[in-house]
Amino acid sequence: MPHRESDSLAARVLQGDIRAAARLITLIEEDSPQAFDALDLLHRHTGKAHVVGITGAPGVGKSTLTSGLIDYFRRYNATLGIIAIDPTSAISGGAVLGDRIRMQQHSADPAVFIRSLATRGGTGGLARAAIGAIRIMDALGKDIILVETVGSGQLETDIVKAADTSLLVMAPGAGDEIQTMKAGILETVHIFVVNKADKEGADQLKIYLEAMPERRPGAWRPSVLLTDALSGRGVERLAASIQRHHEYLETGGQIEERRRERAKLELLTLVTDSLKDMVDRFDEDDYLNKLLNDFLAGKTGLHSAYLKIIERLPGELDKTSGGGKDGI
Amino acid sequence: MPHRESDSLAARVLQGDIRAAARLITLIEEDSPQAFDALDLLHRHTGKAHVVGITGAPGVGKSTLTSGLIDYFRRYNATLGIIAIDPTSAISGGAVLGDRIRMQQHSADPAVFIRSLATRGGTGGLARAAIGAIRIMDALGKDIILVETVGSGQLETDIVKAADTSLLVMAPGAGDEIQTMKAGILETVHIFVVNKADKEGADQLKIYLEAMPERRPGAWRPSVLLTDALSGRGVERLAASIQRHHEYLETGGQIEERRRERAKLELLTLVTDSLKDMVDRFDEDDYLNKLLNDFLAGKTGLHSAYLKIIERLPGELDKTSGGGKDGI
Repeated sequence: MPHRESDSLAARVLQGDIRAAARLITLIEEDSPQAFDALDLLHRHTGKAHVVGITGAPGVGKSTLTSGLIDYFRRYNATLGIIAIDPTSAISGGAVLGDRIRMQQHSADPAVFIRSLATRGGTGGLARAAIGAIRIMDALGKDIILVETVGSGQLETDIVKAADTSLLVMAPGAGDEIQTMKAGILETVHIFVVNKADKEGADQLKIYLEAMPERRPGAWRPSVLLTDALSGRGVERLAASIQRHHEYLETGGQIEERRRERAKLELLTLVTDSLKDMVDRFDEDDYLNKLLNDFLAGKTGLHSAYLKIIERLPGELDKTSGGGKDGI
Repeated sequence: MPHRESDSLAARVLQGDIRAAARLITLIEEDSPQAFDALDLLHRHTGKAHVVGITGAPGVGKSTLTSGLIDYFRRYNATLGIIAIDPTSAISGGAVLGDRIRMQQHSADPAVFIRSLATRGGTGGLARAAIGAIRIMDALGKDIILVETVGSGQLETDIVKAADTSLLVMAPGAGDEIQTMKAGILETVHIFVVNKADKEGADQLKIYLEAMPERRPGAWRPSVLLTDALSGRGVERLAASIQRHHEYLETGGQIEERRRERAKLELLTLVTDSLKDMVDRFDEDDYLNKLLNDFLAGKTGLHSAYLKIIERLPGELDKTSGGGKDGI
């Protein structure tokens, strides 16, 4: 059945069948092996959509901004896919469901396909599910795909890397935060959005962002925009900036580079996840318990215990890769 | 030199030398192999400190609360270690440095050792550095170790698991958030703190938390406490609750279980991190580039590419584990 279901799901997605798309995304979330085949079948039909990542801390107004962007792009008849990531694995700082309600006004519009992704296990799996969902929405024929995620470490980094155009939404007074950001991330953001522009400190933050050192010559100089998502002020200019970045990517041929980056992330996340699963399986292993007993009794050091586990992995890996072959 | 430096650092830490402790924590942050030996030497001198994890979303008042707890425990002459984790790898939602300033009033007190940890790479490494810092502060002779971290997915989960007693700090109006939390996490929190108790919704949140289904019979029933960290209201009762949980762990013998859990997390994180490093090294690998070309050209599927990488790992692992042996 795997082959038949994945073939037919892929075919239906290519015909624009939203229910097939939803089903396939669920299979990806569940880490079902059938999903692989379907994604591979869809692959050569993709590469047309413009993927926009929208990240930022909780409460800065990402969902309201996303909703404003949907309104704007719909006026120009663009079709949209929206991927909203709920990092429920975080104890706190998670997405407040209420925020998402604003987006529901678009759920009756057949040209807008909205899908939430929730964490089952680690954030690695979530990044991979997001990339899978991007590919499916691309194959469905959506022109623009907005991927919205709350800031949460690795996941945020991954989404910024996976998008063609990446937005970082901030609220006034976030100057201190920026100083603690990892340099590598700031350099991959294409558009900085200072939302709640009426609040004190908005102009200051904008000046601060604009004063950031230039990237290499000829590279995209990040835009810094003031918006007020609730009233809609600045959303039009933001949309224009997103389109300008898309043109920049296409003219310079960098769009291929972004797609390659996305594929690499997908592949490496898949490998890392499966290795992590393998280590997690050790958790119920008697061997690990014995090692822990020795360690707690002071009979073995942490590094020796680590080496003993590493030495056992090649055997475990052979099982994993063999199992994968038979399973598909 | 590795052996000699790690021996002498460990010896100095056991004599209460704060500068040696600080140096050793830096070595751990830098992932230096010398740190392993020193940690192993310290291991059998630890197990006396009470480790308290303090997590929660940005802005709920964790640092102010931590500062209040330090004041309280110092009045009873307890010595303290504070580990403040800055998840700077997150684009946003990170620690605002200004918050930490409040804690600086304690920096002149020699009985209080405060240390910030910042992310270099992934959050896995950060969890491991935190566990190492816990062990060092324990070996230094600190009675209570407070580990404060901003909510950010896996890291928060790890800190909750690594602590003897774990606190989740919330602000009023977080009811929606709780519903999106992963069940497994809520079940491992020992004390819920509703801070900013004067604000609307505080009593409601307290009632909501108290109404959560009971855990297995005989298990610790989580406390729910209202505090106002700024005025100090409720901090005394919170400290009492922390001590009550410690007594509960010691009487029931569960303190050993917590330590085992901490050691397991340390070991498995070490394994996962090193595997992830190995996969990252593929990044500059010609083999990966060829695979990506084939994948992007539609000549190979994602799952086949994955299997090809997995098949190469045993050889890579042998290199890693051999290298580790020679390097130490």
